[in-house]
Amino acid sequence: MHVGPPRRGRAVNDAAPARASSLIVEKYGGTSLADMERIRAVARNIAESAKAGHRMIVVVSAMSGETNRLLELAREAADAPSERESDVLLATGEQVSIALVTMALHALGVEARSHTGAQFRILTDQAHGSARIVEIRSERVQRDLQRGVVAVVAGFQGVDGDDNITTLGRGGSDTTAVAVAAALNADECRIYTDVAGVHTADPRVVPEARRLDRLTFEEMLELSGAGAKVLQIRAVEFAGKYNVPLRVLSSFAPGPGTLITNEDPKMEQPLISGITYSRDEAKVTIRGVPDKPGVAHQLLGPVSEARVNVDMIVQNVGADGLTDLTFTVSSGDLERSKKILAPIVAGIKGAELTGGGGLAKVSVVGVGMRSHAGIATAMFKTLFEKGINIQMISTSEIKISVTIDMEYTELAVRALHKAFGLEEAA
Amino acid sequence: MHVGPPRRGRAVNDAAPARASSLIVEKYGGTSLADMERIRAVARNIAESAKAGHRMIVVVSAMSGETNRLLELAREAADAPSERESDVLLATGEQVSIALVTMALHALGVEARSHTGAQFRILTDQAHGSARIVEIRSERVQRDLQRGVVAVVAGFQGVDGDDNITTLGRGGSDTTAVAVAAALNADECRIYTDVAGVHTADPRVVPEARRLDRLTFEEMLELSGAGAKVLQIRAVEFAGKYNVPLRVLSSFAPGPGTLITNEDPKMEQPLISGITYSRDEAKVTIRGVPDKPGVAHQLLGPVSEARVNVDMIVQNVGADGLTDLTFTVSSGDLERSKKILAPIVAGIKGAELTGGGGLAKVSVVGVGMRSHAGIATAMFKTLFEKGINIQMISTSEIKISVTIDMEYTELAVRALHKAFGLEEAA
Repeated sequence: MHVGPPRRGRAVNDAAPARASSLIVEKYGGTSLADMERIRAVARNIAESAKAGHRMIVVVSAMSGETNRLLELAREAADAPSERESDVLLATGEQVSIALVTMALHALGVEARSHTGAQFRILTDQAHGSARIVEIRSERVQRDLQRGVVAVVAGFQGVDGDDNITTLGRGGSDTTAVAVAAALNADECRIYTDVAGVHTADPRVVPEARRLDRLTFEEMLELSGAGAKVLQIRAVEFAGKYNVPLRVLSSFAPGPGTLITNEDPKMEQPLISGITYSRDEAKVTIRGVPDKPGVAHQLLGPVSEARVNVDMIVQNVGADGLTDLTFTVSSGDLERSKKILAPIVAGIKGAELTGGGGLAKVSVVGVGMRSHAGIATAMFKTLFEKGINIQMISTSEIKISVTIDMEYTELAVRALHKAFGLEEAA
Repeated sequence: MHVGPPRRGRAVNDAAPARASSLIVEKYGGTSLADMERIRAVARNIAESAKAGHRMIVVVSAMSGETNRLLELAREAADAPSERESDVLLATGEQVSIALVTMALHALGVEARSHTGAQFRILTDQAHGSARIVEIRSERVQRDLQRGVVAVVAGFQGVDGDDNITTLGRGGSDTTAVAVAAALNADECRIYTDVAGVHTADPRVVPEARRLDRLTFEEMLELSGAGAKVLQIRAVEFAGKYNVPLRVLSSFAPGPGTLITNEDPKMEQPLISGITYSRDEAKVTIRGVPDKPGVAHQLLGPVSEARVNVDMIVQNVGADGLTDLTFTVSSGDLERSKKILAPIVAGIKGAELTGGGGLAKVSVVGVGMRSHAGIATAMFKTLFEKGINIQMISTSEIKISVTIDMEYTELAVRALHKAFGLEEAA
């Protein structure tokens, strides 16, 4: 999941706030819009940005709980509701939000106008429920923006070439915000969440965890993949691809948040940007498989076809023409995975299938890792000193992940956070 | 409110059911869609019509209660919510319905596809909250209909020339259904309600009241205006104008309902088609006004500008150059009307303003009245025999309305129903 170099030149200035008359895209999720009081707070936040002179596009999700309520109606209507009609139903959630946020802005004296996905011409492919944005035809909105009218856009939804309503899948509002920011060449895309930004570790586990001022897209991708659920991974990819500066910040507390941009070679890189973890992992091991081309595919193909989300995959070359393959899945998928593999492994002479849960994945992420040796050594040493056994190791260019017994999760995260000096300001 | 002759020739055949492969528009209101059980019942009803071989367009309202829930959200968001944004909000109600009804049809194995007002290209003017349909561009749906796919269309909503979402005002789904039927040259437009059809009188007041097999648009208009709340008056006007056969029937009980068409000169007309009433009327009288041109306008202009709904207006020519003007309003508007008129009447030397509530309007309606003398006499005689005092009289070509003390309402309706022999089959 490597993110290439910036496709368009763009000056990213971290220190200075966005210039007046900059184009800012702000995105508010369902928790920020849970009730009318919060919607009014969101409106006040938008009004402040608008009064600072920025041209503003606001992307909103459905009020929290609304999407689940609508899904429940769909389930009552039909055992297997049509995906096209589910999208028609779900899209009403964000349509309610755009109207209410726009009304709340009017009540503050801010000129604003709502746009459904169809009205904003967010054109997607035809994959109902998980559509991909193909094009955004935003001509109509430009005149509004020039006149200082805030555009309030429904996230998560679009229309295909035949004007059928589509949705981007859960969390798709982040993607809408980034796509809109890219299409309109916005100066910044601000994702408002319920956390103050991206941290060096989960603050619930490591009280000393420090908010990161900035990160690269690559680091954010690895952090997202490693369990930090701040941003949709698709949105980060998109932002990296189109070089849209992303800022993650809290809609409940003021603060600069975390700015995510392309790597700036002039910038002093910290070695490590954060420690992440995910719990409730399980592993499945197949031992004694003949080490021939196609083995991984033969074993993992049926598992992924059953929509089991496979995370780490580790294979060691064996000495006697046999190999062992281990992969991790979430605990909930363990039994299903074993059931799928049992007949396949039974057909391989001498092969043996084992598996078990109760694991955690702990990762060290940092773009600085690329040019500094010894991170892995430092990580393994720290865990050894705490008596934590490493079961699996997997690395990428800017991440090292290990699998350990779940009960050591907090201990490992805190020890690594301290070992890499993350509590001090970089 | 005279409805002219049919604009297009069309054979209306009352006795025979609609031909197979006829195009039928069915409309279901909020009460018929109140919960998932009723939505499934509606789907079964539609499935039956579709299986009879008809091409089907179904127009649906929001689930009952939904529009009020959304209006409440709007009121919370802003003291005076923008009409444009209110329409964006309210339109979600019908959008939820089209998705759920379509899903329920799929569950019965019926091919169906939902259409929002925007998707069906129901083009309106820009009057948010009370838009008028300008055009319906239904090219897209024709292919579906030919293939036997049921089109499920959101009532009450459309888009203006700039693709802004508009709504037609409360009860607008009836209008959508009739407009769609007119635009697509449907063979019949069926309005499903919670009553079995149009009756000779309110069955709660007159247990012997009889369902009418058929009515003319003119009669239905007078019945609607006289308090029979079965159909939106705008929808009836529209149906008359475009000669769309309308059928009112129950979504809860089977039956042929009441067919409303243009008058058929070959058909034996019953003298009277029904007795209607409305309660809680009030009257305002201005006595001793100089009988000069412009008096009615001078007095009624400010009242109607204040959006008070004025119903009956009676003015007698006086003997001494003075005249008395009386009009009726709903009881709730009495005090406001008097407050508006007080300063105006104070400015007219010798004029006097009085008013009072506790009235009912009782009307006798029938297209046969036109060619038969003596209906008025029979009506007045019946009321006199029951000791009921008539306060005001107002007549149209096919209706006679009187204002009486409200406590005599039921007595008057029952006596008239009997006097005109409405309990017997015509």
